[in-house]
Amino acid sequence: MTGPHPDIAAVRVAVRRALKPTGRDGLVLVACSGGPDSLALAGAAAFAAPRLGLRVGGVTVDHGLQDGSAERAARVAAALRGLGLHPVETAAVTVDGPGGPEGAARTARYAALDRAAEAHQAAAVLLGHTRDDQAETVLLRLARGSGARSLAGMAARNGRYLRPFLDLDRGTVHRAAALMGLDHWDDPHNADPAYARSRVRGEALPVLERVLGPGIAEALARSAALLRDDADALDAMAAAALERARTADGVDGAELAALPRAVRTRVLRRFAIDAGCPPGALGVRHVTELERLVTDWRGQAHVDLPGGLRGRRAGDGRIGIAR
Amino acid sequence: MTGPHPDIAAVRVAVRRALKPTGRDGLVLVACSGGPDSLALAGAAAFAAPRLGLRVGGVTVDHGLQDGSAERAARVAAALRGLGLHPVETAAVTVDGPGGPEGAARTARYAALDRAAEAHQAAAVLLGHTRDDQAETVLLRLARGSGARSLAGMAARNGRYLRPFLDLDRGTVHRAAALMGLDHWDDPHNADPAYARSRVRGEALPVLERVLGPGIAEALARSAALLRDDADALDAMAAAALERARTADGVDGAELAALPRAVRTRVLRRFAIDAGCPPGALGVRHVTELERLVTDWRGQAHVDLPGGLRGRRAGDGRIGIAR
Repeated sequence: MTGPHPDIAAVRVAVRRALKPTGRDGLVLVACSGGPDSLALAGAAAFAAPRLGLRVGGVTVDHGLQDGSAERAARVAAALRGLGLHPVETAAVTVDGPGGPEGAARTARYAALDRAAEAHQAAAVLLGHTRDDQAETVLLRLARGSGARSLAGMAARNGRYLRPFLDLDRGTVHRAAALMGLDHWDDPHNADPAYARSRVRGEALPVLERVLGPGIAEALARSAALLRDDADALDAMAAAALERARTADGVDGAELAALPRAVRTRVLRRFAIDAGCPPGALGVRHVTELERLVTDWRGQAHVDLPGGLRGRRAGDGRIGIAR
Repeated sequence: MTGPHPDIAAVRVAVRRALKPTGRDGLVLVACSGGPDSLALAGAAAFAAPRLGLRVGGVTVDHGLQDGSAERAARVAAALRGLGLHPVETAAVTVDGPGGPEGAARTARYAALDRAAEAHQAAAVLLGHTRDDQAETVLLRLARGSGARSLAGMAARNGRYLRPFLDLDRGTVHRAAALMGLDHWDDPHNADPAYARSRVRGEALPVLERVLGPGIAEALARSAALLRDDADALDAMAAAALERARTADGVDGAELAALPRAVRTRVLRRFAIDAGCPPGALGVRHVTELERLVTDWRGQAHVDLPGGLRGRRAGDGRIGIAR
């Protein structure tokens, strides 16, 4: 008796593990671009989900960015139906938001997936990101000089979104797609050096492999997982510390001064966002200046913050943020 | 009235800031390889330290790895004396320890610096590492898939060792050395692709600059600083949690189960090292298996750990590590 090919077994096991906590008797949706990763995901889900008592549907998003994208979306939908997924939906979106072409497409795509999940009352939406995608994400975020939360990359589980393949390498997933006979489409954007992610994939990671040795993608993903635990712990501590430190119109400076720096800076960041600072514009520099009101107070008049806000220290050591 | 060139001012200010907490009336030693970074450090310290009431000496380590290294060390010592440093010492070491050529040279070098610091009762030893060295260190450690402590790179202050230039880019420091008329030596190892650090410097970082945009070294150093705060906070919490959880012959599983994962894994790592596991051989995998005794107990007999040790769970939920 022979079982399935190891690569097919790997993708099926990954989906089964991810879906196990979802419970029985519901619908899960596979988000599928028509690329080999998400087609393998659809194939694995078509096998694994019914065995857990779950129904499987699919969504493919037509970003409308390339000629013939509507026809392609229709072909992806047909492939998903061919795998037995039901219902299958194509969602056409308009990519015109802020954040550059990649950011705007991403925002539009997740909005469409959210709508589909709501419409079908899906228990989960499966995404096909692999360990290599995770490594690319971590490298892209390293370029920003950001902290643990950002370097933690993508979550295996974030609300309704599940990424069953986040521990699998792209090679395994691609081979599984081919072995399942799934006819995939190669998005030309994936190789287009106009996109930062394509350059990371095509240039940066191969050079890092050569310079630092093989296994760099796995190493980046492993670091990301460790940093996710750190960020989860410190964010939870900061949320609790902020509640303790809150006063009627600010936060108590003495409470903040007693915290470890990693918690204090997170409390101040959260406090500033609560007060109305746009998160995207609030940088390490702003938080450091706010912190100096607590730990290095030399009579600073105020700290200018994004969104036209100002941080101030009151005579009693309280820190306030207001217009 | 004109002040010094901005690059000279930058290195002097960096040394002054680093030395300020050291107090007056003592000796600080500059560790100098003869390269431009540590020569600029010597020049800046010769200016800044006396103004803080500190005396400045120098040490140069002869690793004995290249022909003529003793003569070169003598020339570096002469240059340091020429800058007014006193005392100046050359320390010859034998590089024959474990850890590869770079690791063994590093171990021998720091042992020699420690001996010099003890012999002269130095209040501090200054090292010339720049922000670019920090970025290289972070990239090298990323290849290992390690956590926040490792990715935090080098500390600006670690016991007696100070790195005043850790926030300065290499270009500024090199220009300062040239402007001060310091005649530096270029270590051929720095450009030798046999060394991982040279490849990171010569190949990996330039490609990342091109792919991800300029400022990658600064971004890596900024991330490292944030992760250092995180690691400091979580390590301190883990040390305290381990003391609370300790029993006569193990740690209390229920105490561990209640901790955030980032703290629990650090407690277990520390507990395993206390029990005799060699830190270098204790990987994420071992700690994860130990953790499963706490959070995913299904009757596992034991967990094999480095150093011939085994982790076990007792009937009362206590976790023990023994031979």
